[in-house]
Amino acid sequence: MKNILAIIVACVMLGACTGQKQSAVIETEVPERPAGQTDVVGLRHEPMDSVRIGFIGLGMRGPSAVGRFCHIDRASVKALCDKHADRVAKSQKILVDRGRPEAAEYSGEEGWKELCQRPDIDLVYICTDWKNHVPMAVYAMEQGKDVAIEVPAAQSLEECWQLVNTAERTQRHCMMLENCVYDFFELTTLNMAQQGLFGDILHVEGSYIHNLEDFWDAYEGNWRLDFNETHRGDIYATHGMGPAAQLVNLHRGNKMNYLVAMDSRAVTGPKLVARNGRDGSAFRNGDHTMTMIQTETGQTIHIQHDVMNPRPYSRMYQLTGTEGFANKYPVEGYAFRSLEPFDGMPDHEDLSSHSFVPDTVKTALMERYRHPIQIELEEKAREVGGHGGMDFIMDYRLIYCLLNGLPLDQDVYDAAEWSCLGELTALSIENNSAPVAVPDFTRGAWRKLDGYHHYMAGE
Amino acid sequence: MKNILAIIVACVMLGACTGQKQSAVIETEVPERPAGQTDVVGLRHEPMDSVRIGFIGLGMRGPSAVGRFCHIDRASVKALCDKHADRVAKSQKILVDRGRPEAAEYSGEEGWKELCQRPDIDLVYICTDWKNHVPMAVYAMEQGKDVAIEVPAAQSLEECWQLVNTAERTQRHCMMLENCVYDFFELTTLNMAQQGLFGDILHVEGSYIHNLEDFWDAYEGNWRLDFNETHRGDIYATHGMGPAAQLVNLHRGNKMNYLVAMDSRAVTGPKLVARNGRDGSAFRNGDHTMTMIQTETGQTIHIQHDVMNPRPYSRMYQLTGTEGFANKYPVEGYAFRSLEPFDGMPDHEDLSSHSFVPDTVKTALMERYRHPIQIELEEKAREVGGHGGMDFIMDYRLIYCLLNGLPLDQDVYDAAEWSCLGELTALSIENNSAPVAVPDFTRGAWRKLDGYHHYMAGE
Repeated sequence: MKNILAIIVACVMLGACTGQKQSAVIETEVPERPAGQTDVVGLRHEPMDSVRIGFIGLGMRGPSAVGRFCHIDRASVKALCDKHADRVAKSQKILVDRGRPEAAEYSGEEGWKELCQRPDIDLVYICTDWKNHVPMAVYAMEQGKDVAIEVPAAQSLEECWQLVNTAERTQRHCMMLENCVYDFFELTTLNMAQQGLFGDILHVEGSYIHNLEDFWDAYEGNWRLDFNETHRGDIYATHGMGPAAQLVNLHRGNKMNYLVAMDSRAVTGPKLVARNGRDGSAFRNGDHTMTMIQTETGQTIHIQHDVMNPRPYSRMYQLTGTEGFANKYPVEGYAFRSLEPFDGMPDHEDLSSHSFVPDTVKTALMERYRHPIQIELEEKAREVGGHGGMDFIMDYRLIYCLLNGLPLDQDVYDAAEWSCLGELTALSIENNSAPVAVPDFTRGAWRKLDGYHHYMAGE
Repeated sequence: MKNILAIIVACVMLGACTGQKQSAVIETEVPERPAGQTDVVGLRHEPMDSVRIGFIGLGMRGPSAVGRFCHIDRASVKALCDKHADRVAKSQKILVDRGRPEAAEYSGEEGWKELCQRPDIDLVYICTDWKNHVPMAVYAMEQGKDVAIEVPAAQSLEECWQLVNTAERTQRHCMMLENCVYDFFELTTLNMAQQGLFGDILHVEGSYIHNLEDFWDAYEGNWRLDFNETHRGDIYATHGMGPAAQLVNLHRGNKMNYLVAMDSRAVTGPKLVARNGRDGSAFRNGDHTMTMIQTETGQTIHIQHDVMNPRPYSRMYQLTGTEGFANKYPVEGYAFRSLEPFDGMPDHEDLSSHSFVPDTVKTALMERYRHPIQIELEEKAREVGGHGGMDFIMDYRLIYCLLNGLPLDQDVYDAAEWSCLGELTALSIENNSAPVAVPDFTRGAWRKLDGYHHYMAGE
């Protein structure tokens, strides 16, 4: 709990028989914005001719990112860094094999600092283990670089505030690399939502349900399982939170007010520790974690986390609106109270508000409401690949927005909002699921924008 | 809030930096068990030669129940009652058309009392609107009758305690008519769970998601929409709670400790009221409600309610265990960490812990693990019908257990536990989703039985 700067409990107890209310929301301290520092909502830089990139962390996600950037015009990989020199060499080979210029190489414990100090780098792209995300991102921004950080960007509230304060102080971009917001169904559904097909959005869901039993050993030094052993709560919420947050316009006219969380007991986690011959009895994270979040404009968000149990992969992506419903797992589907016929809709008579629309209607809908980003990039994204293309779209959009001097699709407040669930849910769980206030990381600037928006050149 | 006898808030605030805990669980009063009264966990009567039944409420669910009982040996319909005499006549015709003896007829405001007073009735079967459930059930038990009550059995905590105290004082059976626990997938999956296929059960889900837009007008005097207008919370939780409760053995060695609930704003509800030309601005129930429940043995339960929005019907039935997973909506499926091969399993190599088992394996599994009740009754249940047969199985089991002098499948504590969510969730929602203790309706007797069990003749 050392990362909680202070906890203030507002606990008002009044007689229930008189109709008065009780409330007991745990609040964490919102540090005052330092004098002279301004928010970075809608932050733009001058357009650029090219984006020069340095990579840190070339173990798991890094090398494939290096490969993807070879397909993006006006993006150049200037430097590669990993603690282990052999990993750097492998990524260098990717560049060479694709006819790209060789990049400078850094390794060892401090190589990443040298990389960040290079004057010929605009963007530092960080794919290390979780605990290095914030120290590296903060240092890079302090060297005047924009940064992109793998998920989750931060591991604690203190780290969330470090990112926010550094981005505000340096006026640099800090984008979390949340890729799932670019998946085809999510992008298309977001577009449908923004065009009003679902009416008023009331409830959204997301999750990270992924049985990691075949993956644990791939994390160097067992860091990912160790983190689960020592931390309770939804420590990996961003894949569920990202698409949900965009649907309800978080810090673009809306904000999270409070959350409550609950977990099941830990059974599989301790067994995994015992498998390595250690005592698993102090394992902290429950096998299955749930969170409910209330927003300022009256929507609810539901998030789940389960990396322990034998369930089919699911991000649970789901939205309920007054006029329609969307569901991605285990089967994609849409339902509507009524749906205006449009050119290309195969059979309007087939619709019922009590069932998913038939596949033919769904296909026609998804074609009609393809997101402009998707239309532009789909073919290339599928060719380049990376989780079915969404990784490429993410990287492309990052470079596109920087080149065109646009606000990025994900800003530092998104990174903080989607990452803060880790510590906030732990706080709720450890207090009998008591409500915990979600801090406003924009410190009042959440009303500046009206709705989530992907900026396009010329805007 | 008049039904809350007293609210005690235990709010302990200690410094977080020292690792000490805060808690603020809202507790409702658990009335002391009156002297000389004993619990009814595992209640049995003497075996009976026949069960003579009186029906109250013949508007919606009643007449089909009358029809189903014509197919159950040694069950006889002795009396029929509804406020409206024409409805009684219609149900009488069902009996006559099926060659059954005519039943006595009661109608008007007080007819149900006369029915309850008849000495030749063993069981009163109540299918009225919600607000009459408890007054009628209490009166019937006081006349020495066993009772069966449609869902939800009770509308408030005070009513839950009335049922419990009356059943304990009179030592009569009080079964809520929760039919979804008898649906094929649920029964089969419960059997698989009890045989250990899913390992330790960690998390279960259930819901009532049913767009009622075509149904509201069918409730006489608009009572169902009125109830939503004046009550917040999950007021219709039993179809989700029933199967979930049986999977985690509620009050058979386990109990609910506390819950938290949250709702979205009300948009469709107020529009429905406005459709009738009235002011909907005071509409209380949110369009979408969520509840999370923590149990004594470390499982979590997740329940949802949405009767307003255009979603495909779903009871969300789902279970996560350490060794397996089951999901019913929108597609039925099972997944396992590993699955022992058995005779009739088509292709063991097809299994992966990351996906649902193939349909061929699922079919073989469901055949192998058909519940003994299902094996006995399936053919007849499908022939008689009623929500695909589950209504018939429910009625059959009620009579079977009474005839054989067995404990019923659902007792008065189930009725209270599954119905109490209405008021408890409202209490949480109106207090910023604060945790609310779930009362132990057994007042200490929840440890008497070890696991949920369907009793069979001879036990």
